[in-house]
Amino acid sequence: MTLPAFDPAFRARLHSLFAWRRDVRHFRSDPLPDGLIERLVQTASLSPSVGFSQPWRFVNVTDATKRDAVIASFKRANLDALSSYDEEDAQRYAKLKLAGLREAPVHLAVFCDEHTDTGKGLGRRTMPEMLEYSVAMACYTLWLDARAYGVGVGWVSILEPGVVTLALDVPEAWRLVAYLCVGFPSEEHDSPELLRAGWESRDSNAATLYER
Amino acid sequence: MTLPAFDPAFRARLHSLFAWRRDVRHFRSDPLPDGLIERLVQTASLSPSVGFSQPWRFVNVTDATKRDAVIASFKRANLDALSSYDEEDAQRYAKLKLAGLREAPVHLAVFCDEHTDTGKGLGRRTMPEMLEYSVAMACYTLWLDARAYGVGVGWVSILEPGVVTLALDVPEAWRLVAYLCVGFPSEEHDSPELLRAGWESRDSNAATLYER
Repeated sequence: MTLPAFDPAFRARLHSLFAWRRDVRHFRSDPLPDGLIERLVQTASLSPSVGFSQPWRFVNVTDATKRDAVIASFKRANLDALSSYDEEDAQRYAKLKLAGLREAPVHLAVFCDEHTDTGKGLGRRTMPEMLEYSVAMACYTLWLDARAYGVGVGWVSILEPGVVTLALDVPEAWRLVAYLCVGFPSEEHDSPELLRAGWESRDSNAATLYER
Repeated sequence: MTLPAFDPAFRARLHSLFAWRRDVRHFRSDPLPDGLIERLVQTASLSPSVGFSQPWRFVNVTDATKRDAVIASFKRANLDALSSYDEEDAQRYAKLKLAGLREAPVHLAVFCDEHTDTGKGLGRRTMPEMLEYSVAMACYTLWLDARAYGVGVGWVSILEPGVVTLALDVPEAWRLVAYLCVGFPSEEHDSPELLRAGWESRDSNAATLYER
């Protein structure tokens, strides 16, 4: 096998994919094509992982009671967050739509198996957080691949991770890294919702190359 | 603007990119094309970030003394890791090439600005680790984009993060997330080096879709 030639046309498409990826909170509720989620998880398993530890565990949350427990947790965490802002920010925060948990046809909880022996600990002796970073990158692979199928992903972090983990009845060593809403977006954008809503603007530090 | 149609040919290319991404430890030492690193950092700034916080800070480490300090840290951490393995694994570990710090023309240290106000804390009240996950995803954007230009990236985590941070003289609130070697690979592969070297095999849990 030789490395495929990634040409300028492919790079332009890839940049479009990065721009149109977006965190989606507005979903249509129709189901995804059969087998697509399984395919996305397969692709995600090609992600980089520290020491080839492959610590990600993808859980398709289909049980209505479990979904309700997650939604209740979001509501509590969201109300608590709202109460942390001063008047002006609180008014703006209250208007934001921060998750599409009710509409999204698929809920994916993504965990890090903290007790995995896979990889024999290589690369994470001095930086143990590499294990969770590997899971975050697997979520991102799935996210990008989903978008290439026209599917949107919204990453919900306004949740009580302990409550969600307990509700989902997973092994004790699994730590929640992400809770993803997955479905077809009901609107398309190439700019962040929080930018469009005036919550935050682009930070020039983020595109700066510092030198040392 | 409307969402570009990502067709099956693009998706096939994207999957090739995921497969050929690899963690590169064998670099040619010739420089990258002018302006490429700046362009990669620009692309990375399109990455998802919690609350649009954009907390990544990319540092191009060009100073020879600073690079030597990083290499010395790698050597110490690697020796310490070696001593943690039993005889058989230690013999195999000693044979692995785990970083290309000497050969790679570019060293990129990537930090998380833990004190950033950008995003006003949105989405990280109950899961503060989202800030570092955002930086990990920015590294991965840069990694994928680099590969689309034929350039390889190797993520070195066998380092003492405190020592490296101090050596690079960055603001106190910046936490080291990644140290990336960047350059043209001297060999190309579509499978992980640790798999080819017999250190670890594919874990079937990683491609499993669990249900709850």
